[in-house]
Amino acid sequence: MNKPESLAHYDSIRAVQWQGDRLRLLDQRLLPQEERWIECLDAAQVTQAIKDLAVRGAPAIGIAAAWGVVLAVQRGAEAGVALARLRAARPTAVNLMWALDRMKARLDAGADAAALQREAQAIQDEDLAANRRMGELGAALIARGSGVLTHCNTGSLATAGYGTALGVIRAGVAGGRIERVYAGETRPWQQGARLTMWELVRDGIPAQLIADSAAAHLMRSGAVQWVIVGADRIAANGDTANKIGTYQLAIAARHHGVRFMVVAPSSTVDMATASGDAIEIELRDPAELLSTAGRRTVVEGAQAWNPVFDVTPAELIDAIVTERGVIEHPTPAVMRMMFAA
Amino acid sequence: MNKPESLAHYDSIRAVQWQGDRLRLLDQRLLPQEERWIECLDAAQVTQAIKDLAVRGAPAIGIAAAWGVVLAVQRGAEAGVALARLRAARPTAVNLMWALDRMKARLDAGADAAALQREAQAIQDEDLAANRRMGELGAALIARGSGVLTHCNTGSLATAGYGTALGVIRAGVAGGRIERVYAGETRPWQQGARLTMWELVRDGIPAQLIADSAAAHLMRSGAVQWVIVGADRIAANGDTANKIGTYQLAIAARHHGVRFMVVAPSSTVDMATASGDAIEIELRDPAELLSTAGRRTVVEGAQAWNPVFDVTPAELIDAIVTERGVIEHPTPAVMRMMFAA
Repeated sequence: MNKPESLAHYDSIRAVQWQGDRLRLLDQRLLPQEERWIECLDAAQVTQAIKDLAVRGAPAIGIAAAWGVVLAVQRGAEAGVALARLRAARPTAVNLMWALDRMKARLDAGADAAALQREAQAIQDEDLAANRRMGELGAALIARGSGVLTHCNTGSLATAGYGTALGVIRAGVAGGRIERVYAGETRPWQQGARLTMWELVRDGIPAQLIADSAAAHLMRSGAVQWVIVGADRIAANGDTANKIGTYQLAIAARHHGVRFMVVAPSSTVDMATASGDAIEIELRDPAELLSTAGRRTVVEGAQAWNPVFDVTPAELIDAIVTERGVIEHPTPAVMRMMFAA
Repeated sequence: MNKPESLAHYDSIRAVQWQGDRLRLLDQRLLPQEERWIECLDAAQVTQAIKDLAVRGAPAIGIAAAWGVVLAVQRGAEAGVALARLRAARPTAVNLMWALDRMKARLDAGADAAALQREAQAIQDEDLAANRRMGELGAALIARGSGVLTHCNTGSLATAGYGTALGVIRAGVAGGRIERVYAGETRPWQQGARLTMWELVRDGIPAQLIADSAAAHLMRSGAVQWVIVGADRIAANGDTANKIGTYQLAIAARHHGVRFMVVAPSSTVDMATASGDAIEIELRDPAELLSTAGRRTVVEGAQAWNPVFDVTPAELIDAIVTERGVIEHPTPAVMRMMFAA
């Protein structure tokens, strides 16, 4: 496998930036039209940024929340209250709970602000390192000359940098294994159209945007060998909660003999949740489907159902890639071997 | 089965209106924000309205084109040229070719403007009658208490009135068989969000809009027993070309044991096309995915792949409903029995 001279070319974005006394977040609601940064001076502002999707992506949410705890302590706020509010900001991604548990353990052990800052920095640095490692592991599964389809945004914007599924795509393109990249729009929030395409164009990786509903037609054409997605929570049996539409892609992939890869750091694995049935699926405001850019696009009086995640059963997943290694055809026993505490 | 006192309540829209010397078309690009009518005074304006999607839906395109031929003759234009241009306006829907063949046969037989006008009116009237009949036939397949999911717009806007798939839904709701209606947005043109929801709200039929990619998650919940769609062309073996995303729904339906119904007038059946492989799939401008309401939403430099139809193989179709009757599990032999000339 060819090693590129530098991966920097493929990894130029840092969307969550600690500034010593404030947290800068690249506002993902405005991309790609506008690159505006939000400055969070306290934990409440971080909580709001997570709720409002200014920061999104399971790993990035966890990292931002960890810095939120640091801000709470720096400002002399009640850290327990800040923790509880951050924890409740979004329900599906487990990385949020995981990062806050790490911060709480340090707090409970009497850590000062400096020690908490080191812990948050460790969470962020470990995420980047995990993404690099997953990029190598995932790309190694892909045969030279392949086409891949991804969903939502799992790149530098969704993580500490480089990305999970998009990290595998970056590594696969850099190594010459991946020749064709397709990204689904990812309604209603258009993370694929707005964010993934922005990252790919910025990195000079040729890619085609498709409507989410064109995926099966694309697979039938033979252009795609792997669907590669991230995860918001992976249950103990391998069932995976991820952005709405992931499950539909997994069904279509199986129908066409296309392989299906989930890429997520081990912090996304939730061994306390036996299966996908126990994962809470966030329902968001129907207005996200009824309006576009603040303008009503659907007739007044219309209703909408807006679940923003779904669960892909383990049996439809060919490989789960974490920084600890690759699990092909996940089962509870293999998951336990790799992830039991 | 309960008969409603009047179906008028469920069928109030006529989007293609002949005015004696001009054709009025409800501009479907502006709905639901604005109900603006286009007046076509010659065949070229009708051709343009078809190309620009001001009028869309396979049956409605055929009807509009028939009136386009009438306008050409009324204006003293060269009918053959008008016919050729109308025929080339869109490639996938066969109803366009079918309606123009009917008009051409009358022209070749020396019909005058009045006779051509009667033929176009017959095409329009027969379509409405076919939709009423298909509504009864399709609804009869649905068990009381069912939920249904539809895609794109197949209602009064897409036909002479009442609709194909949406006609079955109207009949099923009126008869008390259908309790839950879901409509997919249908990216990129949002026919489900903009048009189907507009028709359903107007008719007082409760319905929920969903993202196209939420369909499998919805099916898994058990809320849906039938997917009901229209068609742009049905090949001799039952393979069906329809709006992009239909094929993906058929795969998800089969995976969940949800049944799949195609509803289209016999003018949509193309016995000269052996299978779906021979159907030309229209690729439209990538800009339809890259911009929303004229505003660029995806980063400059991004590319997109925008097929607007796909083919659902006959083996994924549980029933094809036409005004001639219902074919369950279509095969070439049964198709030939019902549709051979």
